Amino acid sequence: MKETEKAFIAGFLDADGSVYVRLKPNKSYRFDFQVAPYIVFFQKEEKAKVLAYIKNLLKVGYLRTRKDGVVEYTIGDVDGLKKVIKTTILYSVLKKEQLQLIDQILSFKKKIRNGKDFLKLAKMIDQFEILNYSKKRTINSQEVEVALKRKKLL
Amino acid sequence: MKETEKAFIAGFLDADGSVYVRLKPNKSYRFDFQVAPYIVFFQKEEKAKVLAYIKNLLKVGYLRTRKDGVVEYTIGDVDGLKKVIKTTILYSVLKKEQLQLIDQILSFKKKIRNGKDFLKLAKMIDQFEILNYSKKRTINSQEVEVALKRKKLL
Repeated sequence: MKETEKAFIAGFLDADGSVYVRLKPNKSYRFDFQVAPYIVFFQKEEKAKVLAYIKNLLKVGYLRTRKDGVVEYTIGDVDGLKKVIKTTILYSVLKKEQLQLIDQILSFKKKIRNGKDFLKLAKMIDQFEILNYSKKRTINSQEVEVALKRKKLL
Repeated sequence: MKETEKAFIAGFLDADGSVYVRLKPNKSYRFDFQVAPYIVFFQKEEKAKVLAYIKNLLKVGYLRTRKDGVVEYTIGDVDGLKKVIKTTILYSVLKKEQLQLIDQILSFKKKIRNGKDFLKLAKMIDQFEILNYSKKRTINSQEVEVALKRKKLL
């Protein structure tokens, strides 16, 4: 990919993209939570060709049209996320820290051994709430701590 | 400016920018309308540093915070517009045609001699309604035609 193509994607991500991790309660996982990292690009349906253009450059993730007509280009798999991070981190102005954080989370996630590690991961995920100026400010780690103690994993 | 900086601006413009021309009724102008072309970048206040970054690269236009907290980076002068067009047109995916059209309008505007020319300009401006997927679909040229006929300029 050309450097200018990478910079274009970074500019688009800064404006109409989102970098975040969801912690979803899910009893089928060891620590009762699924860790789901995402990079998503948004655009109105009539302008969605730019998302197809970006997807064609990155060759990861998938496009989906929401009921409200907004098209989402979502990357949620580890290899895809690493590709997007590597492509955009040098040129992003607004989301450099989020991209670094999601990269750290992907690395740390692989090394989790126990409840203490998982709580540390949850605290890393909390940082997105601040970086993304979230109004909800969900404290994931508090919920995780309660769940881990209940399971005697902390 | 680096090519990657230009490409970043183009990506940002494609996502959160707008390229348009307003035809404002104004009796102090020869044809009763002011032709006001704009390129505007938008962003929430907490992320406005990216607009300052882009303004610092382009060195044209001005920043303004709206009452609803959205920050607008507006370029409305001919030299500024030409600078933004030249910088982004090669890398824009979504707004290439709008950038070409505004460039044509800036050139044609200087050569206007009579009412017929001005009506032609108004028809060029109409094309933005289609390119920008405007829901209002204002037909500027119809209003202009009525005004020019009333003034016996057509």
